[in-house]
Amino acid sequence: MKNLSKTQWTPKVVTALLLAAILFNLGIARNDYFNTDNLNPKIKMETTEKKKKKANETAKINGFALGDIVGTVEAIQANPDIAKFQFRVQNKWINGGHNRSWIKDFYGGGQEDDSRKRPFVYDNSEPPILLGNNEGANPVEYILHGLAGCMTTTLALHAAANEIYLESVESKLEGDLDVQGFLGLNDQIRNGYQNIRITFQIKGDLSEDDKEKLASFVKKSPVFDIVTNQVPVQVDLQYKNLQHALDGIKGTLLHDFG
Amino acid sequence: MKNLSKTQWTPKVVTALLLAAILFNLGIARNDYFNTDNLNPKIKMETTEKKKKKANETAKINGFALGDIVGTVEAIQANPDIAKFQFRVQNKWINGGHNRSWIKDFYGGGQEDDSRKRPFVYDNSEPPILLGNNEGANPVEYILHGLAGCMTTTLALHAAANEIYLESVESKLEGDLDVQGFLGLNDQIRNGYQNIRITFQIKGDLSEDDKEKLASFVKKSPVFDIVTNQVPVQVDLQYKNLQHALDGIKGTLLHDFG
Repeated sequence: MKNLSKTQWTPKVVTALLLAAILFNLGIARNDYFNTDNLNPKIKMETTEKKKKKANETAKINGFALGDIVGTVEAIQANPDIAKFQFRVQNKWINGGHNRSWIKDFYGGGQEDDSRKRPFVYDNSEPPILLGNNEGANPVEYILHGLAGCMTTTLALHAAANEIYLESVESKLEGDLDVQGFLGLNDQIRNGYQNIRITFQIKGDLSEDDKEKLASFVKKSPVFDIVTNQVPVQVDLQYKNLQHALDGIKGTLLHDFG
Repeated sequence: MKNLSKTQWTPKVVTALLLAAILFNLGIARNDYFNTDNLNPKIKMETTEKKKKKANETAKINGFALGDIVGTVEAIQANPDIAKFQFRVQNKWINGGHNRSWIKDFYGGGQEDDSRKRPFVYDNSEPPILLGNNEGANPVEYILHGLAGCMTTTLALHAAANEIYLESVESKLEGDLDVQGFLGLNDQIRNGYQNIRITFQIKGDLSEDDKEKLASFVKKSPVFDIVTNQVPVQVDLQYKNLQHALDGIKGTLLHDFG
């Protein structure tokens, strides 16, 4: 299995892979249009390296510019600290099972990111059978959404880095959850998903070797790791005792609390 | 710690709790407006039980109708099979790190749910530094959103069931992720979050006992369980080999694949 590791991502290797892919797609290599046995590919590539490299940088595979992937990997190899990200969410309870998150800033690449001018706003809610009014998907459905999206992006990115072109990717997810656990009605039943099943439908011109790689790529997904393994979560609850504050200056504080 | 278990949720107990809460909120019990020492609460409640029960059913605590919570718990105790839910998501890759989920149907309460007339549609994307164009939050941010929402809903529901009134709940979440893991650049670094921190700001008239309960309630969240523990995930990849199909009837198939 090929990883995006140091030795595989030198410009020369990328150039060689791209050249092979281009030749293959033009039907040249495939159709033995001309015999390349007598050519020394290394010498040939060195003479045209700059030109090819420039072409590679703008080439897109699965929607990813190969130059961007290579640039990211090289930058991280030069300074691993820029690989450290901190993602953030702010959430506010609205009522009952309805609450809202704001997602905007994060830290990554050695700095605070300012690429988002407005926050993404998403509502968690519940359907009537779970005592809500369907103002949004519920939190465990959002987990399936994040899992699907992360595995799909991971698949497309690692496929691009390995010169595997994908035509389409669709997925269906099912998660089994018995609410007896969450409601405290049965100690033998866990609170979260007991099981999740994911089926991907992938279209493309894929060899058996490609298929094996794709099966390994989806499991590199960060959310797949989060869901299938344990993540330490520190919870801190801070309180403001409303009643004491209200004893004195009720009107003013209610405004502040609104 | 009080769970929503069978012995605690008889109508009588609910009635007693509600009555106490109503008296307390009216300032009667608190201000010793009248001395209840000589009353037998049990006899009093039995004579007015029907009336009070009806009032309880429409009473809302933290946005939840107590009658709905009790009704749900009693229904599950009578038939545990209705506690089994299956949530579902469909996702389609758009391009690069951009994909879209549709969330609508689910199974629960012994039947297919049809309360949602249209699907919820959410986009996963990535910021430019992660090779995307910010068409939506990224998948690991959605995980923090689901975690915040689930812990908040769990808090509000269990607080309601325990007669703890909340004024407001806000949370901030941070998740640490080093993309060297995901990119295969360092085997010692995991692919998902290394650590998540959540801080809740809770306002209400809360006793020390209430606060201890709330700290336990947030950890009953299904998503908290999913993130902090392991969930088995079965992955099935199904392929359609585009090239072979295209050899014969390219035009027709391209339409089908679009």
